[in-house]
Amino acid sequence: MSKTKKFSVGLVQMHCDADPEANREKIVARIREAAKLGAQIVCTQELFTSHYFCQREDSALFDLAEPIPGPSTKVLSQIAKECGVVIVGSLFERRAAGLYHNTAVVHDADGSLLGMYRKMHIPDDPLYYEKYYFTPGDIGFRAFETKFAKLGVLVCWDQWYPEGARLTALQGADVLFYPTAIGWHPSEKAQYGAAQADAWRTMQRAHAISNGVYVCAVNRVGHEGATEVAGKKEGGLEFWGGSFVSDPFGVVLKEGSRTDEEILVVECDPAHQESVRRNWPFLRDRRIDAYGGITQRYLDGTGSAGGSGSR
Amino acid sequence: MSKTKKFSVGLVQMHCDADPEANREKIVARIREAAKLGAQIVCTQELFTSHYFCQREDSALFDLAEPIPGPSTKVLSQIAKECGVVIVGSLFERRAAGLYHNTAVVHDADGSLLGMYRKMHIPDDPLYYEKYYFTPGDIGFRAFETKFAKLGVLVCWDQWYPEGARLTALQGADVLFYPTAIGWHPSEKAQYGAAQADAWRTMQRAHAISNGVYVCAVNRVGHEGATEVAGKKEGGLEFWGGSFVSDPFGVVLKEGSRTDEEILVVECDPAHQESVRRNWPFLRDRRIDAYGGITQRYLDGTGSAGGSGSR
Repeated sequence: MSKTKKFSVGLVQMHCDADPEANREKIVARIREAAKLGAQIVCTQELFTSHYFCQREDSALFDLAEPIPGPSTKVLSQIAKECGVVIVGSLFERRAAGLYHNTAVVHDADGSLLGMYRKMHIPDDPLYYEKYYFTPGDIGFRAFETKFAKLGVLVCWDQWYPEGARLTALQGADVLFYPTAIGWHPSEKAQYGAAQADAWRTMQRAHAISNGVYVCAVNRVGHEGATEVAGKKEGGLEFWGGSFVSDPFGVVLKEGSRTDEEILVVECDPAHQESVRRNWPFLRDRRIDAYGGITQRYLDGTGSAGGSGSR
Repeated sequence: MSKTKKFSVGLVQMHCDADPEANREKIVARIREAAKLGAQIVCTQELFTSHYFCQREDSALFDLAEPIPGPSTKVLSQIAKECGVVIVGSLFERRAAGLYHNTAVVHDADGSLLGMYRKMHIPDDPLYYEKYYFTPGDIGFRAFETKFAKLGVLVCWDQWYPEGARLTALQGADVLFYPTAIGWHPSEKAQYGAAQADAWRTMQRAHAISNGVYVCAVNRVGHEGATEVAGKKEGGLEFWGGSFVSDPFGVVLKEGSRTDEEILVVECDPAHQESVRRNWPFLRDRRIDAYGGITQRYLDGTGSAGGSGSR
């Protein structure tokens, strides 16, 4: 017997304001709208309560962090219950003074907080100074049984790591959500922009294919952190939107604009997932006896002993 | 200091004949041609010495297997030495009576046999009855230091497994070769053909991106195993060609035809690879403390204990 109950996902792609309260009001309105459009599991973009503050290192910005539960989970819980939808929300978590995480929370359709995921892979690149703000997650990769589907959440930089997708799918997740904040450096956009956005999409489609799961990437839009020079915007990050849903075959079912706010609602079909996995049964043939080396930094012989099967 | 010596790969996409001797003569001519075009590392498609015999289970077909070293490695060694090129060749290995592998051999540019890789992931699907013929590899994932580059070899079905690509790249491979025999069931081609070929390409481009390596997929062309019904070919497999080289950014640099024989020669630049890895430093941030569950079949709690960090 296979699962047969279809479910609909809703991806909220939006601009963010500087004011957390304004963003919370906005997300509530959008979730309400997504629910009206039929969405049963709604996901926000990464750190939706503020601008993407990691463009600079400033200790005052830790003021943006909030406890979990806290003001944002209160709002998300209420709207989840009101609309009867599952909500995946991405927040800046204050765990203790001097200890912060980039955390996703999952509220079930009755408003209850099912659990959280703390971003495991933390980037640090020019204008993405996340290692300054976020302690890497310490609760591992996770899947959550919700009212409508078993889902996994991973966050942004995680999307470049097949290990994270695999470990979440192996826990039975039928759909992976990736709240994201990725954009172009305006100075690089002409030369590398198209290839960067395509690589981002390709990588996540591959997670869908190799694991036989639906994948939803939710990215923000807008040019944040720019300075105005002679009437022209310079610097900052141009978030490239392009939120999308891939089916378990890697087919992009719907894709958002590069610049505009959008709500994408897509129906996912467990029967289709079952069919894809039966026809391309990758999970059947994994060589778990030979994957031990995955837990090594590099297989150059300088680390501790890896699985002998992997050398 | 980064590696700076460029190298050129050559992918030989061809039809195969039923006769191993004819295929060996053909590959020798093609390798000679590839070398003239500037290729320094030449790779064959999967099981190039015969038709793709796994379309049926027939014990007589084990006659196609050969020892390593054997007739094919003799020919590959000679032409490697003659042309001064590295050769990656895919063979049906007879290790002992009743013990056979799908094996790739690597000859260095002086003709010496550097080593072999035995296909780790073995498929078994209608018309791809490989579990009947091939014992899964028992020597793990491998990288080989050759005259022109450090390379890894994986074979066909391996291409759906991020673990194989990762474990090979972690050994320092700068380029991964995938000798392949993949095609359409004619009855499925109209409905699923385009998505299947695109998923195949997407998956391997993702290996290039997540590991920051060049990836070369070498597939055969031709409709094999069809029966003629009223002047029309029915059944069998239509091998879809489409051999390609992806750069470490996932950009397809060159791609072969769906139906015709071709030799693709592409220059690879370690300086470009270095640049891609510096700008998207995925290897820096792997959470090796939390990947233990990768060696589990499924994380449903019924297996032996996985790494606690991964649940």
